[in-house]
Amino acid sequence: MNFTSNAKYEEIASLINRYHAIRQHSVNLIAELSAEDCQLQAMADVSPSKWHLAHTTWFFETFLLTQQQAQYQVFDSAFKVLFNSYYNGIGDQYSRASRGALSRPSLESVLGYRRYVDNAVLEFLNQTIHVSKEIADIIELGLNHEQQHQELMLMDIKYNFSINPLFPHYYDKNNNPVAVSQSQVSELNFVPFSQQIIDIGAADSDFSYDNERPKHQVFIQPFRFANRLIANGEYLAFMQSGGYQNPEYWLSDGWAQINKTHQTAPLYWHKINNEWFEFTLHGLQPLALAEPVTHITFYEASAYAHYCNARLPTEFEWEYAAAHTLEDQFKQSNSANSTAPVIEQLTEHCWQWTNSAYLPYPGFKPIAGVAGEYNGKFMANQMVLRGGCKFTPKNHLRLTYRNFYYPHQAWMRSGIRLAKD
Amino acid sequence: MNFTSNAKYEEIASLINRYHAIRQHSVNLIAELSAEDCQLQAMADVSPSKWHLAHTTWFFETFLLTQQQAQYQVFDSAFKVLFNSYYNGIGDQYSRASRGALSRPSLESVLGYRRYVDNAVLEFLNQTIHVSKEIADIIELGLNHEQQHQELMLMDIKYNFSINPLFPHYYDKNNNPVAVSQSQVSELNFVPFSQQIIDIGAADSDFSYDNERPKHQVFIQPFRFANRLIANGEYLAFMQSGGYQNPEYWLSDGWAQINKTHQTAPLYWHKINNEWFEFTLHGLQPLALAEPVTHITFYEASAYAHYCNARLPTEFEWEYAAAHTLEDQFKQSNSANSTAPVIEQLTEHCWQWTNSAYLPYPGFKPIAGVAGEYNGKFMANQMVLRGGCKFTPKNHLRLTYRNFYYPHQAWMRSGIRLAKD
Amino acid sequence: MNFTSNAKYEEIASLINRYHAIRQHSVNLIAELSAEDCQLQAMADVSPSKWHLAHTTWFFETFLLTQQQAQYQVFDSAFKVLFNSYYNGIGDQYSRASRGALSRPSLESVLGYRRYVDNAVLEFLNQTIHVSKEIADIIELGLNHEQQHQELMLMDIKYNFSINPLFPHYYDKNNNPVAVSQSQVSELNFVPFSQQIIDIGAADSDFSYDNERPKHQVFIQPFRFANRLIANGEYLAFMQSGGYQNPEYWLSDGWAQINKTHQTAPLYWHKINNEWFEFTLHGLQPLALAEPVTHITFYEASAYAHYCNARLPTEFEWEYAAAHTLEDQFKQSNSANSTAPVIEQLTEHCWQWTNSAYLPYPGFKPIAGVAGEYNGKFMANQMVLRGGCKFTPKNHLRLTYRNFYYPHQAWMRSGIRLAKD
Amino acid sequence: MNFTSNAKYEEIASLINRYHAIRQHSVNLIAELSAEDCQLQAMADVSPSKWHLAHTTWFFETFLLTQQQAQYQVFDSAFKVLFNSYYNGIGDQYSRASRGALSRPSLESVLGYRRYVDNAVLEFLNQTIHVSKEIADIIELGLNHEQQHQELMLMDIKYNFSINPLFPHYYDKNNNPVAVSQSQVSELNFVPFSQQIIDIGAADSDFSYDNERPKHQVFIQPFRFANRLIANGEYLAFMQSGGYQNPEYWLSDGWAQINKTHQTAPLYWHKINNEWFEFTLHGLQPLALAEPVTHITFYEASAYAHYCNARLPTEFEWEYAAAHTLEDQFKQSNSANSTAPVIEQLTEHCWQWTNSAYLPYPGFKPIAGVAGEYNGKFMANQMVLRGGCKFTPKNHLRLTYRNFYYPHQAWMRSGIRLAKD
Repeated sequence: MNFTSNAKYEEIASLINRYHAIRQHSVNLIAELSAEDCQLQAMADVSPSKWHLAHTTWFFETFLLTQQQAQYQVFDSAFKVLFNSYYNGIGDQYSRASRGALSRPSLESVLGYRRYVDNAVLEFLNQTIHVSKEIADIIELGLNHEQQHQELMLMDIKYNFSINPLFPHYYDKNNNPVAVSQSQVSELNFVPFSQQIIDIGAADSDFSYDNERPKHQVFIQPFRFANRLIANGEYLAFMQSGGYQNPEYWLSDGWAQINKTHQTAPLYWHKINNEWFEFTLHGLQPLALAEPVTHITFYEASAYAHYCNARLPTEFEWEYAAAHTLEDQFKQSNSANSTAPVIEQLTEHCWQWTNSAYLPYPGFKPIAGVAGEYNGKFMANQMVLRGGCKFTPKNHLRLTYRNFYYPHQAWMRSGIRLAKD
Repeated sequence: MNFTSNAKYEEIASLINRYHAIRQHSVNLIAELSAEDCQLQAMADVSPSKWHLAHTTWFFETFLLTQQQAQYQVFDSAFKVLFNSYYNGIGDQYSRASRGALSRPSLESVLGYRRYVDNAVLEFLNQTIHVSKEIADIIELGLNHEQQHQELMLMDIKYNFSINPLFPHYYDKNNNPVAVSQSQVSELNFVPFSQQIIDIGAADSDFSYDNERPKHQVFIQPFRFANRLIANGEYLAFMQSGGYQNPEYWLSDGWAQINKTHQTAPLYWHKINNEWFEFTLHGLQPLALAEPVTHITFYEASAYAHYCNARLPTEFEWEYAAAHTLEDQFKQSNSANSTAPVIEQLTEHCWQWTNSAYLPYPGFKPIAGVAGEYNGKFMANQMVLRGGCKFTPKNHLRLTYRNFYYPHQAWMRSGIRLAKD
Repeated sequence: MNFTSNAKYEEIASLINRYHAIRQHSVNLIAELSAEDCQLQAMADVSPSKWHLAHTTWFFETFLLTQQQAQYQVFDSAFKVLFNSYYNGIGDQYSRASRGALSRPSLESVLGYRRYVDNAVLEFLNQTIHVSKEIADIIELGLNHEQQHQELMLMDIKYNFSINPLFPHYYDKNNNPVAVSQSQVSELNFVPFSQQIIDIGAADSDFSYDNERPKHQVFIQPFRFANRLIANGEYLAFMQSGGYQNPEYWLSDGWAQINKTHQTAPLYWHKINNEWFEFTLHGLQPLALAEPVTHITFYEASAYAHYCNARLPTEFEWEYAAAHTLEDQFKQSNSANSTAPVIEQLTEHCWQWTNSAYLPYPGFKPIAGVAGEYNGKFMANQMVLRGGCKFTPKNHLRLTYRNFYYPHQAWMRSGIRLAKD
Repeated sequence: MNFTSNAKYEEIASLINRYHAIRQHSVNLIAELSAEDCQLQAMADVSPSKWHLAHTTWFFETFLLTQQQAQYQVFDSAFKVLFNSYYNGIGDQYSRASRGALSRPSLESVLGYRRYVDNAVLEFLNQTIHVSKEIADIIELGLNHEQQHQELMLMDIKYNFSINPLFPHYYDKNNNPVAVSQSQVSELNFVPFSQQIIDIGAADSDFSYDNERPKHQVFIQPFRFANRLIANGEYLAFMQSGGYQNPEYWLSDGWAQINKTHQTAPLYWHKINNEWFEFTLHGLQPLALAEPVTHITFYEASAYAHYCNARLPTEFEWEYAAAHTLEDQFKQSNSANSTAPVIEQLTEHCWQWTNSAYLPYPGFKPIAGVAGEYNGKFMANQMVLRGGCKFTPKNHLRLTYRNFYYPHQAWMRSGIRLAKD
């Protein structure tokens, strides 16, 4: 994003609108929640909604206002530590696992913090004749950061509600739209791709995170890519065939984990009176067999793939297959009689585990400055997921997007896409 | 408590008044707290205020209404598990360490639960012509149970607030009454008591917990009993003399604990810019040197006693010295020229660690029925504290009261009374 | 032990004989073990035989030779830390849990250390014309300490072998003397004792540990004391009646422990092809139903007592009943027609859990000097066991002996004696 | 390895010789160790020498003799479980962390097991006219497996000795050859390589592990590769500049680890009286500043690279640079006037952390049959190291060899090779 003088008024106006819309959306997400709901932290990995609302605000205060506005007065000096997530360059952080143990500041006070910072940002933008690239970049980063946290808010609320025996629902319990019916599930097949040198990663022209850059060439061997995600019913068959009892399917660390936790089903599945249910944002619902299986660990995804004599795709195969599909769809729409293979469920259902570890691309450079701790320091022990999910803001999706989690985690909306050699 | 027909109307009226007053006091305790405050659980040992409000209500619903009122409809069947603390006889319990992870039922809903149960109890009592001993006993037990939880609510709020870097205050921050000024601290001396056979424990005539009964005889050797509690300033001198670095003062398990936790001061003490502060319900306050030291583990109390070439009293010595003092005070007030020794700070400041393990008295019998899990099953690994504290409801105190905690715990208001042979 | 000039030669000769005999017995205990066996440490609570052999030697080197012999040269200066168990007054200690991780010094070298120290001790005694009380006391303490470690060596070897799937045997596997046959088991009954003031503890005249002193008076209520220990067959009936599944029998901490460890039988019991076996120093043996149950935690003993509507005796009741029995036996042997009740299995089978916490007697004084850490610092969190066991050297037994372990421990030879009010 | 009939006698003879030599070398490694030394297991990651000697023997018994020799009688049926490392396909395994708790079988007995199995293998080979490819492959795998364990034996002995305060030495303490003197350390520089498509992995013709196959093409970007390893002195400078206190150098998981363990220097470094020492197989030695730094975690290697504004190479860069160097050296030796850059210390000093996660190559196929658990199931959470080390048998080295460890581990001989874009 680069603002030249000609277009500057429209661009600032557009930026202001975008800022308004995205910031408002975060607040909309808690419209149906109480202050008590917004304080929940049911495990160390999740954060209270209130914390998300404050931290995303802290981001603008810390990386924009404090740095660019000499006369800016921080809302509360204690927030520097309280709402710092992991930026050692900024200073100390309040203990992550204890975020749910803070009743003060109250939700009301955090919403006041948001209004205070929003006013300051908008005042700053309104006073500005020329938005420098540096400032535009930090705002863009802040808005993308906020959208990431919007997805986290939904993931975290789901987990926080899931351990309550009352099974609270975030959306209307009686209006649970089944996205995929059994008749809509196409037969699983594998679309072939030939060996070639492909472009991977994001170009510099549009917004992307540092971990998606630079765009570079990768040599891929021939592979085949599943036309759709694995469904709940298929995963249930794996379970019923003894999948969790047979070490031959499992990575060694995965086998150790399920033996330690005694896990025998995905995170949110419950067997009640011999029927399977799944906890959802609509509360506890009968397991929808045709829907993609979600909230799966990497170990589970990998075990399922072994059970099928298949494997998970690499992130490069995923990006290439997905880009190819979109191109084909574009061509198809311009052609009367298409035979292009159809690859479905790419970004709208769930993030898809790849067999690629989360590592820097060749030539990777972290963002300059204090915000540079953003992505690079997590490049160990995690695996890449590609796609996007129901919880991701639609305009936050990119085919080059690299999501990443530890192999044992499942509270994000993760699912299974298979591949074969 | 026994209701004979003659006095029954007054007695029921009095019981209703008492019920009203005690139940109302619990709600009064949260008058200045938000719903968010009432949900805090900053460690596994403490519970949210909301949980205390619900659990004490569950007690009356479970042990009185459900058992005595055939037509009683429970408020919410899920509460049977959610608000059961530890009664295996009643059934499953929701995980203790996760009580803070419940935003539903809301505080509002819990207050509704209280009103519902209170109405049912009062209706039951109003309809009753004769309150049987069994029913009177269970109500009395429930009210004492509620008073215990009132003390727990204050202990738990203090701990929950203490880990918040904003150091919230429960009472007015600028109105922290210092109970004891330096000039009021009498010189520490030891009042002698001679060898004899004494009565220990509560008689059957008045209310007491099962663990205080039966009254029985104990042979005690001559001992001396400190005339007052140890003050913050005295404990500070122990610290400054290297008390936490010198193993000779410490029990082996205590030395292991402070080496594991790296503890070098009492739980709520903070050294800020070389000045000592103490976290209190009035927020962070300068350490009041003349006040009794509080929130002390048994290990710390024991180490301090070793440092003084003294020891902690047994619970029998404590009970005898305290009872003796009261008798003396009574006699004194009737005599012109008293020389009776003065023992101060018995029940109003803090619970006092004794060197007695929490064990059954000879002939101990648990309460009959499902409420019988009340005290007996905790008779291992804990030490007895005697006295009472600032957080204890005044009409809940008894000289025979046996409080008990694990030696490493300090979030209750515990302090140090010395004794010598 | 007090050496007056008259009797000094005989007394020194007798002390030298006693030293020889006890020190040699420790070495005899490993006669059938390999150097590899002597290095085992299968859990943190146990120590390698090699360590015991070295530590008991270190005791004489540290508390006798180094202090009393100006010209004494230590065998190896590194041993000061390596073989210090827990004496902070002496200095640092090598990590207890890592004792099994030391292959050097070798067993051979440790046996050399023993010879070196024994020579120095005997030379010292031979040169001595008058053994002062202080020196006689420290030698006596050292010999009793060594005898304690002889019992520990057998306990620890048993545990160390027990986790080896080959079930090694320390004694001849085919020569396992069953101590008690079914026909020898008398009917369980309870011998009544009346209320009185009794003497408890050891007199100053004979050797005893500091924790057994001073002798003092205790008031006891009437009680009844089981005539024998609980047998394996009786404990098995408790298990088969669902004892480990029923929380009503268990102390709260005990219930938590068996739920965490999933324990459903005593430590050394194994069910193989539907038959019960017990691991013993003779290897794996069919469970002998008539023998006393052993290797029982305090929690198990307490649960069993609840199941029987009985309780465990206090240590005062135990000492009194045992002393009484001996007196009676003495009288009986002098009377033609005795009706005195018979109490069996007091010291020869297993230590017997009491319901008394391990706490100081009134007027308790630790041993003076650096050896004074001997007993006092363990007076928290442990329970007293009385009696003695098959592993205890016979001349190490005393009716006033106070053994102590944590309630969850079972690798010592502990069993169940019941009592009733 | 493929045995055609023509060459079969020589080939069998050669295989027998090779079997003899490699098996004997394992036993030679413990020539200076006692049975006690061979039983040590100082942490869960390491195994006793005795266990290695037994497990490598179990490998031949299980995968060769039991499968190919109908009449073969196993040495001891209990060994099937005791010495199974991780092959779920074979059955249960004895707990890994408790290998040091087995004194039986004795070292003597394990050496007998080796002789028994070796005799059976050699008898089998001598009787064989034609060694099938399947059998040749399993023997070859067994011999490579044994060589891997020879390296592990040295790594493990080093760790086991390192925690003994006596710092035992495996080699002569007074004959510690310093491999690299300060004058021999060339200036650190970076050799450039251009972008290209390279071949990675092992061809099928020679022996390699399944994880090195198939050979495949990889596109690499231009990179620069350090001419030598990082020396102890350079790493010390990083430490002295505050490297362990500055989060900006560290991966997030690495920063968490050093804060949890309070680590401030490499595993085997000791500061004694202000001088740095390093524990080695020659005992404790003054830190040799010119020698490559070793026993470094991935987190430490990564932090050091950040500190230098460099990075770790990928495993593809490593393999390519190493292969290139060898080619150049070959050409150089045939050319009068070479200018080829020199890359040193490739395989003889230490394994070199790469920034590549341990993942399957495209088209990876595990070994067929029960031995197929060999490598694939560890392909999560670990990083690849390339090269070889002083402990690796020389004829076990290959440029395509992929070693792998968890990022926090350091007991293998790991070091730092830098790269740059």
